Amino acid sequence: MTVQISSLRGFSTAEFEARYARAQTVMREHRLDALLLTAPPNVRYFTGFDSQFWESPTRPWFVIAPLDRAPIAVIPEIGEPEMALTWLTDVRSWPAPRPADDGVSLLADAIASLPVRFGRVGAELGREMSLRMPVMDFLSLRDRVKGVEFVDGSPCIWRIRMIKSAGEIARIRHICEIASDAYAALPGKVHIGDTEREACRRLRIDIAERGADATPFLPGISGPGGVPQIVCGPHDRPLEKGDVLFIDTGSTYDGYFCDFDRNYAIGEISDAAKRAQDAVWLATEDGIAAAVPGSTTSDVWRAMAKRLESAGSLGNNVGRQGHGLGLQLTEPPSNMPGDDTLIEVGMVLTIEPGMEYAPGKMIVHEENVVITPSGAELLTKRAPREMWRID
Amino acid sequence: MTVQISSLRGFSTAEFEARYARAQTVMREHRLDALLLTAPPNVRYFTGFDSQFWESPTRPWFVIAPLDRAPIAVIPEIGEPEMALTWLTDVRSWPAPRPADDGVSLLADAIASLPVRFGRVGAELGREMSLRMPVMDFLSLRDRVKGVEFVDGSPCIWRIRMIKSAGEIARIRHICEIASDAYAALPGKVHIGDTEREACRRLRIDIAERGADATPFLPGISGPGGVPQIVCGPHDRPLEKGDVLFIDTGSTYDGYFCDFDRNYAIGEISDAAKRAQDAVWLATEDGIAAAVPGSTTSDVWRAMAKRLESAGSLGNNVGRQGHGLGLQLTEPPSNMPGDDTLIEVGMVLTIEPGMEYAPGKMIVHEENVVITPSGAELLTKRAPREMWRID
Repeated sequence: MTVQISSLRGFSTAEFEARYARAQTVMREHRLDALLLTAPPNVRYFTGFDSQFWESPTRPWFVIAPLDRAPIAVIPEIGEPEMALTWLTDVRSWPAPRPADDGVSLLADAIASLPVRFGRVGAELGREMSLRMPVMDFLSLRDRVKGVEFVDGSPCIWRIRMIKSAGEIARIRHICEIASDAYAALPGKVHIGDTEREACRRLRIDIAERGADATPFLPGISGPGGVPQIVCGPHDRPLEKGDVLFIDTGSTYDGYFCDFDRNYAIGEISDAAKRAQDAVWLATEDGIAAAVPGSTTSDVWRAMAKRLESAGSLGNNVGRQGHGLGLQLTEPPSNMPGDDTLIEVGMVLTIEPGMEYAPGKMIVHEENVVITPSGAELLTKRAPREMWRID
Repeated sequence: MTVQISSLRGFSTAEFEARYARAQTVMREHRLDALLLTAPPNVRYFTGFDSQFWESPTRPWFVIAPLDRAPIAVIPEIGEPEMALTWLTDVRSWPAPRPADDGVSLLADAIASLPVRFGRVGAELGREMSLRMPVMDFLSLRDRVKGVEFVDGSPCIWRIRMIKSAGEIARIRHICEIASDAYAALPGKVHIGDTEREACRRLRIDIAERGADATPFLPGISGPGGVPQIVCGPHDRPLEKGDVLFIDTGSTYDGYFCDFDRNYAIGEISDAAKRAQDAVWLATEDGIAAAVPGSTTSDVWRAMAKRLESAGSLGNNVGRQGHGLGLQLTEPPSNMPGDDTLIEVGMVLTIEPGMEYAPGKMIVHEENVVITPSGAELLTKRAPREMWRID
C-alpha cells in the first residue's frame, strides 16, 4: 500500500492492462460484447486520458472497450495528440465540431466491426450515470448498428470501478491529507465577521497551495448552532458568534477526489449544538467500526442511525450516510437502507452521519476510509471530537 | 451597460421574469408546451439556483418551464431549502437517492398535469447538450407521459440563452478582467525551469485571490516555438528557452465564464514563432472587426482564415475559430464555415484564431467580445502584439 508521492502522476501501462483484464471478466459476467464509454471518469479510468476540456459540452468523446481486444478511442481531432500518448493504440478521430455527424458514423462503424458474441453493448444508461452525448445521437446510433442491443452498462461499470487499486487508493489518501491539513489550518485564517465566501476562498487557495490539482466542490454554509442544508453556498453571510460553519470539499489529485467536511464553532456554540456535535462524532466512530469486509452498506447505515436516533435526531435531508468515491465526488454504493451492497476490500467510502437536532439546525460529519482485510482505515485525518473554534 | 460589481451576486426576480417572458415567446415559436431542464446551466438560467453539488452524479434535478405558467422545480430533498430561496414558488421534492424511482414518477405527474397545446415538450436532446439523468429513466418517462411528444429542445434553449442580458454581460466582463490581470502578472511569478504545472498552479491561485469563484478549466502546455494541442495539460515539463507556454482559462464569477488564453515566450523565441504570433494577433484583430451585427459566424471565420492562410498556416486541430460563452465555457454558435449564425447585439463570443506554422507547432490566440450595435467590444484586456516574456 506504500506508494511514493512522486509516482502519483499517471498510471503505468501494466495498471491499465490489469484494470482491463478485470473489466473484461466483469463484462463477460454481464454478458456484454463491449462497453461504450462517454463520461470523463469512465474514459479516464480505461485510458488514462486527462483533460479539463470536458468542461466544453460541444464535442462528444467515445471509448469502446470490447470484450476481447484492446480499447478503441473515437474522438475529436483536437484530442488526438494527447490520446496518442496513452496506452491505447487504436485512436480514430473526426474534425469536430461537425453538428451534422459529430462522430456518430465513425462510432457506428467501429461498433459494427466488433465480433458479436452476446449481441449486447453496455452503455452509460443507468444508475448515477449520464450519457455525455446528445440523446438524439445515441438513438440514431442505436438504429444504425444492426444486430446489437444497447443495454444498461452501469451495473458492470460500477462493479469494475468500485474496487480500487493500490495506486488509486494512494491518490485518494494524498488528496485527503492535503485537504485535512488545509481544514486544520483554517481557524488561523478566518475570524468572526468574515463572510462564508471569504472563508471558503481562503480554504480553496490553501488547498491549491498544498498541491491539489483542482477543487470542483467546496460548498460552505453557516447558521446559528447548525445549518439548514449542506450542498449550496457559500453566500456573503458574515460569521457570527454561536454559528456553526460547515465546509465540505471535493478536491482532486491526479484525477482522484476526496470528499469530506469539517465544522467550525464560531466563538462559543450552544450546549445543544455541542451535544449534537458529540453524537454525530460518535456516530462516525460507529460507522467506521461497522465498515468491515462482509458487512453491508445497510449495516453501516444502521450503526450510525442507532446512535443518532438515541441522540434525538429529527432525521436530515441528505438521504443517505455516505457513499463511494474515487474518480468522482460520489459513486455507488450508498450507505442507506435497502442498498445492501456487500463491503469488500479495496472499496473507498465516505462515512457521513448527520442529524437535524432542531428545525433548520443540522450537523453533518464526514470521513473517508478504505476497506482493508482488518476493517476501515482512515484516509482523512480524523476530525477532533470538539469542533475547531474560530474567534 | 454599467453595473456595479457589488450588485453582481444573484439576479433580481425582475431579471428572471424578463428572461422567462422572452423564453416563453421563443417556446411558442418552437411550438413547445414546456421545456424539461436537467443540466446545471439550464436550471441556473431559469431559476438562479446555484450549487456545486452538481459534481455528484447521484441525484437528478429537474425544472419544468411551461409555456403559460411559472417554472416548477422537481428536485431531491437535499436541495429544497436553497431552491426555496429562489423566485420559484412551485418546488416539489422526493427523498433521493431512491434508485427504484429517482424523481421519475413525480416528474411524470408534473408534466402530465400541464395543459396540452402543441403536445410537445422540449428536452435537452440535441446539439451541445447532454441530458443529466439516466437515459433509462428518460425513456421510461417518455413512455409514462401519454399524449406528449418529447422533442429536441436544444435549438429553443440555445436561442434563449444566446442573447445575454446586461447583467450577464457584466459578470462575464468582470471575470474576464480578473483573468486578464492574473495573466498579465504571471511573468513575475514564473521562471525558466519551472514546470508547466507550477506555472498553472500559480495562475490558478492568483485568479482565486483576485476574486474568481472557481476555475473549472485551466489547461497549460509548452513546446519549442509552439504547442501540439491546446486542451490537455499541464504536465511536469520544465519550461525551456525558446518555448511557447500556452495557458487557457475558463474561470467563473457568479456562474459566468471567461474563456481565453495567453501565450508566453520563454526567453527568446524563434523568428518563425514570432512571425506566426504576429499573424495570429492580426487575425484576432480581423475577427474582432468582422464580428458586427448582421454578419455571420462564417464571415468571422473567413476574416481570420484569410489572414492565417496568407501567413502560411498548415491549419489546426481545433475545428473552429471561436464560439459563444456564458454560463458554460463553450456555447453555440461556432465561428466556422457552415455555421452561418447571424451575429446579433447581446451575443458574447470568443474570437479564437490559431495556426500550425510547422508540424506540431501551433499558436492559438483568444479574446472575448460582446456584440454591441457598433460592433464587437472587448471584454478581455487585449493581449499584447508581442508575447509576454518569461525569463
